Amino acid sequence: MDDIEIEAVAEVDLSDPVLIEGLPGVGNVGKLAVEHLLEEFEEATLVRRIYADVFPPQVTLESGVAELTHAEVHAVETPGEGPDLLLLTGDHQAQSNEGHYHLTDTFLDIAEEFGADRLFALGGVPTGELVDEPSVLGAVTNESQVEELEDVGVEFRDGEPAGGIVGVSGLLLGLGGRRGFTAACLMGETSGYLVDPQSAQVVIEVLQELLDFSVDFEALEDRAEEMKEVAAKIQEMQQQQQQSIPSDDDLRYIG
Amino acid sequence: MDDIEIEAVAEVDLSDPVLIEGLPGVGNVGKLAVEHLLEEFEEATLVRRIYADVFPPQVTLESGVAELTHAEVHAVETPGEGPDLLLLTGDHQAQSNEGHYHLTDTFLDIAEEFGADRLFALGGVPTGELVDEPSVLGAVTNESQVEELEDVGVEFRDGEPAGGIVGVSGLLLGLGGRRGFTAACLMGETSGYLVDPQSAQVVIEVLQELLDFSVDFEALEDRAEEMKEVAAKIQEMQQQQQQSIPSDDDLRYIG
Amino acid sequence: MDDIEIEAVAEVDLSDPVLIEGLPGVGNVGKLAVEHLLEEFEEATLVRRIYADVFPPQVTLESGVAELTHAEVHAVETPGEGPDLLLLTGDHQAQSNEGHYHLTDTFLDIAEEFGADRLFALGGVPTGELVDEPSVLGAVTNESQVEELEDVGVEFRDGEPAGGIVGVSGLLLGLGGRRGFTAACLMGETSGYLVDPQSAQVVIEVLQELLDFSVDFEALEDRAEEMKEVAAKIQEMQQQQQQSIPSDDDLRYIG
Amino acid sequence: MDDIEIEAVAEVDLSDPVLIEGLPGVGNVGKLAVEHLLEEFEEATLVRRIYADVFPPQVTLESGVAELTHAEVHAVETPGEGPDLLLLTGDHQAQSNEGHYHLTDTFLDIAEEFGADRLFALGGVPTGELVDEPSVLGAVTNESQVEELEDVGVEFRDGEPAGGIVGVSGLLLGLGGRRGFTAACLMGETSGYLVDPQSAQVVIEVLQELLDFSVDFEALEDRAEEMKEVAAKIQEMQQQQQQSIPSDDDLRYIG
Repeated sequence: MDDIEIEAVAEVDLSDPVLIEGLPGVGNVGKLAVEHLLEEFEEATLVRRIYADVFPPQVTLESGVAELTHAEVHAVETPGEGPDLLLLTGDHQAQSNEGHYHLTDTFLDIAEEFGADRLFALGGVPTGELVDEPSVLGAVTNESQVEELEDVGVEFRDGEPAGGIVGVSGLLLGLGGRRGFTAACLMGETSGYLVDPQSAQVVIEVLQELLDFSVDFEALEDRAEEMKEVAAKIQEMQQQQQQSIPSDDDLRYIG
Repeated sequence: MDDIEIEAVAEVDLSDPVLIEGLPGVGNVGKLAVEHLLEEFEEATLVRRIYADVFPPQVTLESGVAELTHAEVHAVETPGEGPDLLLLTGDHQAQSNEGHYHLTDTFLDIAEEFGADRLFALGGVPTGELVDEPSVLGAVTNESQVEELEDVGVEFRDGEPAGGIVGVSGLLLGLGGRRGFTAACLMGETSGYLVDPQSAQVVIEVLQELLDFSVDFEALEDRAEEMKEVAAKIQEMQQQQQQSIPSDDDLRYIG
Repeated sequence: MDDIEIEAVAEVDLSDPVLIEGLPGVGNVGKLAVEHLLEEFEEATLVRRIYADVFPPQVTLESGVAELTHAEVHAVETPGEGPDLLLLTGDHQAQSNEGHYHLTDTFLDIAEEFGADRLFALGGVPTGELVDEPSVLGAVTNESQVEELEDVGVEFRDGEPAGGIVGVSGLLLGLGGRRGFTAACLMGETSGYLVDPQSAQVVIEVLQELLDFSVDFEALEDRAEEMKEVAAKIQEMQQQQQQSIPSDDDLRYIG
Repeated sequence: MDDIEIEAVAEVDLSDPVLIEGLPGVGNVGKLAVEHLLEEFEEATLVRRIYADVFPPQVTLESGVAELTHAEVHAVETPGEGPDLLLLTGDHQAQSNEGHYHLTDTFLDIAEEFGADRLFALGGVPTGELVDEPSVLGAVTNESQVEELEDVGVEFRDGEPAGGIVGVSGLLLGLGGRRGFTAACLMGETSGYLVDPQSAQVVIEVLQELLDFSVDFEALEDRAEEMKEVAAKIQEMQQQQQQSIPSDDDLRYIG
């Protein structure tokens, strides 16, 4: 196998498509969002598989059948006025510093091949605490994009996320911008402790307005409800634990 | 030395051989199994040594004579009706993410060179507790293989092993499948804490039925007996320790 | 993207320029110093950006606009008698052992391209305690440089810094010396615990005398004042903590 | 700089030279031994410097003058009947798995260039406790070498050192043997906790007999004396510490 291999699974003619990326990350927000789009757009066509020796040396199993770790690009010919979509997702980020760069360049190659010159990288931004009504933070390659995004509720806050954006999402803007893409990152606020379907939903809602499509959210809302129950149980357990841990004052008493 | 070097030690004409891999891993099940086959098939011929700069920079010593870390392929012309065998084993997995990919591709090159288009990767699946009668779990490259394997007792369980299969065993399916091999992974259940000759035996028993050969198990059974005594001693020691560790309740008393 | 990419942003004719490097490191002394020079020489021209897959896979954000991690070289045509300057800075060191070598070679390529054959690597040397009046330690590629540096107050102490100089600063001397550059490292003493604008100032003061330029220090002095207050608060907090921690003697009493 | 660069410092005609390697390792035995030979053979000529991007990105300082991390080969035309020597030493091992392989191949290239077909890798073997009269353990590329080495007191013990030999010393045997060198590793017993000049001396004494040269040991003996005092002080401190640590029984009493 070459270091990176693109498997052409199908060819589809798209009109002015937009690449939307959702790989694993904080709260799995990006991955949840793109997977939800794949479920809702039932006509999505798998067009490319990307294998790479910087992915973990691993197969996943589906009913006992092994599948080599890879990323996937699906094409969606949207029914409405909006642009067609290229949905990029997968189970893993690259395992090395250099790997993130080379993989991202490959993803951009594929986007170019299908005629895309716009892209959205989806992700989460950790707040450190449970968020009731998550906002969506934005980052762009050109200042001129800010206004359009603010119009649909995306927030631009100075110095957030602190430390910038890492991994493929960050590089899609960094490398994409240098290659002439108009790229934006949409980051849903999330605690950072749990997978967060609610945050994925608010990110998709922004995309819907920007790209003029519409999907159902029942499946995501159900998962969000489940996660809220999980979060509630965890909080309860933590409170019980804290009550039974001797405080600093108690410990000081020993000496 | 090149990054990977194949040393051709001998040439053997095989009829429709099957590659069987057993490198170090959980419970050392795969390695024990292939080493047992090598001991029982006394006519096995060492045909290839594989050196690689992703193996540890290390020599092992046998009576003071140094041998560079490598993997080995032995050829076995089986006496019965079954196919000939290519037995792959070694002391180490690759030391880097990319190394697993490149090594596995090399192993598949060798298999192809000898005309093999079927392979079995042997390994262990950790259960977290001592297992009296280990089952053999399976994974395959094509759904059509499942029935044949179930017929000889291999189990396919949804979501097991969790996390899929990592290392060379996983990639032999992942890369092998993409290169047209009919590949399967046979994983003996094992605690995950000790080397497990019993689990190696049940894996070989499955292979025997599939490939129509027959070996003696006395050596493995002796080692399994020894390991059971080791396990019993460890359990005894743990129980003694637990009695002398103050419980959580006791500790809470301090404050 | 290639492994390392040099983006030519502007071309400037310089007379006998000197490269001055200040990347992140101990006390951020080098980076602070070069950034201060960039602020004071308002006519500095950005001439080169250096991108590399050994930089973190990351973008930073400025008012929501993403910028791919890179190093930068600015050209300064100094007003006085002294040589022109090439100021090298950036937010990151290389993330791999080999990366440090390859990046440094690239920086030297750029210096050569602009006709430089002299360079100064700026950094900090950790003392482990707060320093009231930091000295500047020196290291050179040729013994003949020592006297000129000692004349402007640079100290050469046997065995300091212990362990030599690591990272790009070290390699600019190591690789630069082999390529024929006259290179020196100027290291301001610093505690090693905090960013240290005062140490950056004493390093620039040495450079001023060597290269016959003059800059204002008000901005650095203000930041140094702020850092002194931070240091005072930390010391206060540590003293309070130490009083409330049971001493070894107390703990021994438990048994 | 290339990944590995050999700098030809001088050319010397040697008759049938033997390569002797002593890089940092357990007890620094190998490095101490080769450095002692360099001090005693005053006529040694530096013939090659080896630079590599797998060495730490670092310069060392000698009177303020920076020197890029490298390994060195000195040539010694011995006065007696014995073969000439190529002495290989340096401050560092490679920093990566692959680096060990590539560096060792380079060292063997240099040995070949000077006409060597024999080599000795020197090192220490850790015993875990202070050793009064260290033995020298051996490892070889051909069984036929064992007798000659046993004749001068080298011991071959089954299964020692456990885990074989790692790093450049191991690979000089592993790769050297494959390239046709007659190679041996001589390992002085050493505690593993301290640099061990005494162990270096017993290793050199074996070499003297094998290669028919003779050096003075006063300098090593002085350093060995110093290290014995250091070891005595450490033991004393440890005993005092153990007396003041509450035993397990005491601690159990708390609950």
